[in-house]
Amino acid sequence: MSWRGWGDPAQAAGLPESLHRLLRDALGVGEGRRAPESISQIQLVPTRLDRRIALELAGIVGADGVRGDDEARLRHAIGRSTPDLLALRAGGPIVAPDLVLAPDSHDQVMTVLERCSARRVAVVPFGGGTSVVGGVAPDAAAYGGVVALDLGRLAALEQFDEESRLATLGPGLRGPEAERLLADRGYTLGHFPQSFEYATLGGFAATRSSGQASAGYGRFDELVMAMRVATPAGTLELGRAPKSAAGPDLRQLILGSEGAFGVITSLTMAVRPAPAVRVYDGWRFASFSDGVRALRTLAQDGPRPTVLRLSDEVETALTPSRPGEVDGAGGATGGAGASGATGASATPPGSVAIVGFEGDAEVVAQRRAQVATVLAGHGAEPVPGAGESWSEGRYRAPYLRDALLDAGALVETLETACFWSSLHQLHAAVCTAVRDALIDQAPPTPPVVLCHVSHVYPAGASLYFTVAAAQLPDPIAQWRRAKAAAGDAIAALGATITHHHGVGTDHLPWYEREIGELGIATLRAVKRTLDPAGILNPGVLLSVESNVHNRSGGPR
Amino acid sequence: MSWRGWGDPAQAAGLPESLHRLLRDALGVGEGRRAPESISQIQLVPTRLDRRIALELAGIVGADGVRGDDEARLRHAIGRSTPDLLALRAGGPIVAPDLVLAPDSHDQVMTVLERCSARRVAVVPFGGGTSVVGGVAPDAAAYGGVVALDLGRLAALEQFDEESRLATLGPGLRGPEAERLLADRGYTLGHFPQSFEYATLGGFAATRSSGQASAGYGRFDELVMAMRVATPAGTLELGRAPKSAAGPDLRQLILGSEGAFGVITSLTMAVRPAPAVRVYDGWRFASFSDGVRALRTLAQDGPRPTVLRLSDEVETALTPSRPGEVDGAGGATGGAGASGATGASATPPGSVAIVGFEGDAEVVAQRRAQVATVLAGHGAEPVPGAGESWSEGRYRAPYLRDALLDAGALVETLETACFWSSLHQLHAAVCTAVRDALIDQAPPTPPVVLCHVSHVYPAGASLYFTVAAAQLPDPIAQWRRAKAAAGDAIAALGATITHHHGVGTDHLPWYEREIGELGIATLRAVKRTLDPAGILNPGVLLSVESNVHNRSGGPR
Repeated sequence: MSWRGWGDPAQAAGLPESLHRLLRDALGVGEGRRAPESISQIQLVPTRLDRRIALELAGIVGADGVRGDDEARLRHAIGRSTPDLLALRAGGPIVAPDLVLAPDSHDQVMTVLERCSARRVAVVPFGGGTSVVGGVAPDAAAYGGVVALDLGRLAALEQFDEESRLATLGPGLRGPEAERLLADRGYTLGHFPQSFEYATLGGFAATRSSGQASAGYGRFDELVMAMRVATPAGTLELGRAPKSAAGPDLRQLILGSEGAFGVITSLTMAVRPAPAVRVYDGWRFASFSDGVRALRTLAQDGPRPTVLRLSDEVETALTPSRPGEVDGAGGATGGAGASGATGASATPPGSVAIVGFEGDAEVVAQRRAQVATVLAGHGAEPVPGAGESWSEGRYRAPYLRDALLDAGALVETLETACFWSSLHQLHAAVCTAVRDALIDQAPPTPPVVLCHVSHVYPAGASLYFTVAAAQLPDPIAQWRRAKAAAGDAIAALGATITHHHGVGTDHLPWYEREIGELGIATLRAVKRTLDPAGILNPGVLLSVESNVHNRSGGPR
Repeated sequence: MSWRGWGDPAQAAGLPESLHRLLRDALGVGEGRRAPESISQIQLVPTRLDRRIALELAGIVGADGVRGDDEARLRHAIGRSTPDLLALRAGGPIVAPDLVLAPDSHDQVMTVLERCSARRVAVVPFGGGTSVVGGVAPDAAAYGGVVALDLGRLAALEQFDEESRLATLGPGLRGPEAERLLADRGYTLGHFPQSFEYATLGGFAATRSSGQASAGYGRFDELVMAMRVATPAGTLELGRAPKSAAGPDLRQLILGSEGAFGVITSLTMAVRPAPAVRVYDGWRFASFSDGVRALRTLAQDGPRPTVLRLSDEVETALTPSRPGEVDGAGGATGGAGASGATGASATPPGSVAIVGFEGDAEVVAQRRAQVATVLAGHGAEPVPGAGESWSEGRYRAPYLRDALLDAGALVETLETACFWSSLHQLHAAVCTAVRDALIDQAPPTPPVVLCHVSHVYPAGASLYFTVAAAQLPDPIAQWRRAKAAAGDAIAALGATITHHHGVGTDHLPWYEREIGELGIATLRAVKRTLDPAGILNPGVLLSVESNVHNRSGGPR
């Protein structure tokens, strides 16, 4: 992972001149602040950790497992939200962990947690560092220092039960590493979020990740059958059967706990045979409404494709159709679809869906034909090339964001989910809230707001928004305003503040409104039990303040 | 519900003479103690509740909502496990609630909880009273009295969102009542456990119930999209979308909490169009192993039938095949299947599966044909009449149990679940444990142990056992020994102590081993937060003792 942006620097995206012109003419985008060339240009907040404690902690993991240099600290300091990247571009100051520890066993994790509890040192469980909600940036002022607990050495295929189709895997495995281990045996997890290439299994579990093929394979939390969790208070071993009536499902209390309750040291995952065939089709509807109706029909009555996404009219208009164009405007959107247009057009070209099928050739052919009948029944027409275009570009959007930030654009995404009956109202409310927030300031920066339905269920769906505008001199504050307006709109409509990004630190005010004081109090009680010294990811998921009433609900 | 047995007294089952003879000859079953004829024959433990407190509580719900007579107390005292029924047959003494309150609103529930917290009166949320694990029999010696909170008046269809296919329903609705309300609009929940006719939605949710059609419709907990929960500490409103990444899924902390954390006062459920067609087929495999392989194939690779069950060889041999014979031997088993034999035969007639399909005629026909191909590929042959026979008898087993108890047999069921790779080992271990426990006593009562796979998942399945033996003079102690042996065998193999019956009071020792001290401590922390005075169903789900170390793991 590039220390100053996304992914592999060799894969960095260029910005097509047409898109550049569009940003300038339509949004007034000027020059951006480019990412620094060298780590030495980034100001890191000095370490605070007592040297004797650092030595004591280093002793637990051995020389191979410890680093305290600036590069290691920076690489474990922040995630990959746009505010994170903007902070890097500003050259800091960046609050970084004092020490990076990489344990190579559950027992080492337990010892680190025990020592850090005793020494009141905060611990940040660290997987791929791809959080876009501040999930690895704790509020640790009240602690004697911060340790990043890098789980990269817990990366084995520990056990494989082919009869039950279960793989026990280390939490530090990145998506492609896990897939390679499983592919050797003919299996797949089927979990392909946009962060797939860099995020880890432990992170997927801790944040309830959902992949682009969730319609077919399910969310990551649905694939977790058992887990081992190291906590300062002891080890939890959860999951003895696919389902149980033995009390509340404690797996569901760790999934989504974002490192605040414990450290997942092993995951037993449901796996499926690797598909023989993968095909992705594009379909164009006359309108987003028509498309939503068709997606709802498939989600409720089937047959269910493996991938099912739908861009609204704006995203469709700004998304390129032909393979090879993925780094054009639409690549930034992580968009569902494609259109004939390569720029904004006077008449929006409808709403394009990506409909993918993975599996045995025969099953894929049959299901594809059945789905085509349903889609055609809703007035959709095939869009040649759109499926391949989406497939080629499916992991490219974060690269393009780097290029757009370079060019002076403010680009960020946010997402939510609701039940079907409020989907259109939610779509309109978030678009309006973001637009109004970016216009109602000096100077106004009218944005373009794109959206797609990214995940579907029988009862509802998620909406994924991409926002682009001209950067103001303080682009972080500028984005926080827009994000707060979106969060308030989401909360007001009773939707969830996040469908798959997690709470982190960014979503705290809305999360507290979402589950209420009593929900927060319940989670605090769980945290006090599992993490009595409160060392685990303080300020993530739960604010550090003991009294929730003192928090304001507004932007941070 | 009959006060002394199961269901509608007019539906009571007779015992076929052939079965009676079999019980006598094969198991040495003699005479049983018959159920008392009149409630006045049952000794109830006297009320303890202070009269002023009783009047105060009665005032909350009004005259229509309160009863304190013996019949009402008895009807809210116990569930419908065999030990419960045996206790009734012994004439008591039965520990019964002091007062039965039936609130008609969420606010009344809140007020009852507030007053009972202040007065230290235990509260037992009461639905259908069909618990088979002691779920409505709290350990309330340390309290000033016990109130049964009958939720029967919270029984409305509060809201119906056809677009999202969501119905908001009162927790006091019994299965058939809920189905009638939904059928008026063309929908169904699809939740049909054996207790369907008498159990309530709130009970299904609180105990993570799973119905006979779970392969098609899912478990009850999977159908719950949102809920309102009254707790002594306030109201929880949970569920804003089908799925979310906003922290741990708190719905999953209430589902399975068995009334110990709060009272569910409203459930928003996923519903489906009522099926036009329902067909149930019987298929015979050469062996249980062959059948398990076929079920696993369908669960993992599809297509998934709506109902999928498989009797082992013993259950198959003892289950009648023809419609109208369901009150014969096999009706007691809740068995999956049917055979040509009406009694034990020298050569077990293989292993019979029930495979059901519900839905549109076209979809049913297609899926039925596909499944038939898979089953035939595993060597199965159709068993004419077996599907209808199962369907007719699917809710009859509890009636037959009453007749068997009358006849002097000890009959009870237990269930568990595991991953596929340990299914056969678990099957053998539980059979052996139960048999050994019932033989290794004076006098020995060698049992017949029947089993079926009742629910399937891609990663595993549940096993449902029926045990029959001659009753000893203390049949409750006799059963507790067998049950403890089964529980120990289940725990030793790392399976779950219950797949769909719940923890109640009966499963506590094994539940504590299953989730460990830290799991229990976590749940205790949640309970302290939501129910600070500890009034809710004390001793259910969590033992009343504050120190888990003092509990023995043995039989109770």
